[in-house]
Amino acid sequence: MSLVLDPAAQDLLFREARTANTFSDEPVTDEQIQAIYDLVKYGPTAFNQTPLRVVLVRSGEARQRLVNCMAEGNQAKTAAAPLVAILAADNEFHEELPTLFPHFPQAKDMFFSERPVREQSATVNAAMQAAYFIVGVRAAGLAAGPMNGMDFAAVQKEFLDGDHTPLMVVNIGKPGEDAWFARSPRLEFDEVVTTV
Amino acid sequence: MSLVLDPAAQDLLFREARTANTFSDEPVTDEQIQAIYDLVKYGPTAFNQTPLRVVLVRSGEARQRLVNCMAEGNQAKTAAAPLVAILAADNEFHEELPTLFPHFPQAKDMFFSERPVREQSATVNAAMQAAYFIVGVRAAGLAAGPMNGMDFAAVQKEFLDGDHTPLMVVNIGKPGEDAWFARSPRLEFDEVVTTV
Repeated sequence: MSLVLDPAAQDLLFREARTANTFSDEPVTDEQIQAIYDLVKYGPTAFNQTPLRVVLVRSGEARQRLVNCMAEGNQAKTAAAPLVAILAADNEFHEELPTLFPHFPQAKDMFFSERPVREQSATVNAAMQAAYFIVGVRAAGLAAGPMNGMDFAAVQKEFLDGDHTPLMVVNIGKPGEDAWFARSPRLEFDEVVTTV
Repeated sequence: MSLVLDPAAQDLLFREARTANTFSDEPVTDEQIQAIYDLVKYGPTAFNQTPLRVVLVRSGEARQRLVNCMAEGNQAKTAAAPLVAILAADNEFHEELPTLFPHFPQAKDMFFSERPVREQSATVNAAMQAAYFIVGVRAAGLAAGPMNGMDFAAVQKEFLDGDHTPLMVVNIGKPGEDAWFARSPRLEFDEVVTTV
């Protein structure tokens, strides 16, 4: 065995975890989201910039506004999921760097004075944190349903300000009936990894 | 307890895992990298596009070429780490979609016929897979040292073709002496998560 992670944890986080398309009615609590955040906030990002921002869509009014932004094939599950989260990148993350990266406060001005550079870095690092968040949802015994099929400009206009770029919307809850599609194939090791 | 993941696994993957800056001499084997890949390949991506590509830099000649691409502050650890991996996004991932997303093969042409759209999607989804990969390195009982300080254009020219965009370089191994900086602070829950 080359992995030291417990096999049950491997199953929970990766091998048996699946993207859910239906959910039970069981609520997802604020305490669960807090516990997920308190775990995955430690995942590494460049300069500890941690640009991920999360909007939990709880009220019926907000949920309907979000459903209206989603592609048709995603509307029913977005309406039905116990909790829906919008994951976004904060393009002004550099304002927090003197606090987040205290041993090198010059990073804010040295590397991130230009908006396009910040946006690219925020996108990559918030995407990494989105992955940690999905792992965290699974660590809480819940299923995640990340979605890209939406009008991103509408999501930004309805829920975010111009400094935040939406990356994805994630349905969260216990899986419901017929929650999974068949597992799609993965690339072979040799198609992904080369050695020089 | 809001998490169902075993506390030891929480520590291994997030709470006690840290970005390493020094490494022991213990080698990292191909079997370990294969086991990491076989775990984290299941992490979700949009349309199951899995655009991450990995170059393992093993030979002394290749290692020196990579060191020459790194920022000065990253050169010594890149030279000394037992294994170094270049993580990149394949901007032509759509060619694999008929295999990877067999229940909707039209996705290749319907959504990804334009290169800028593909590049953006490849960047976001390869960054997610880079995060899964770092979690997988930790699941193997190893420490990861992801780095952005490099001449990205030089890394692309030396190690990749034009279809692949380098995202980061990751040192991999058992931590050595004084491997960690002090843990930097994280944002509070209320600074990251809002509810509507």
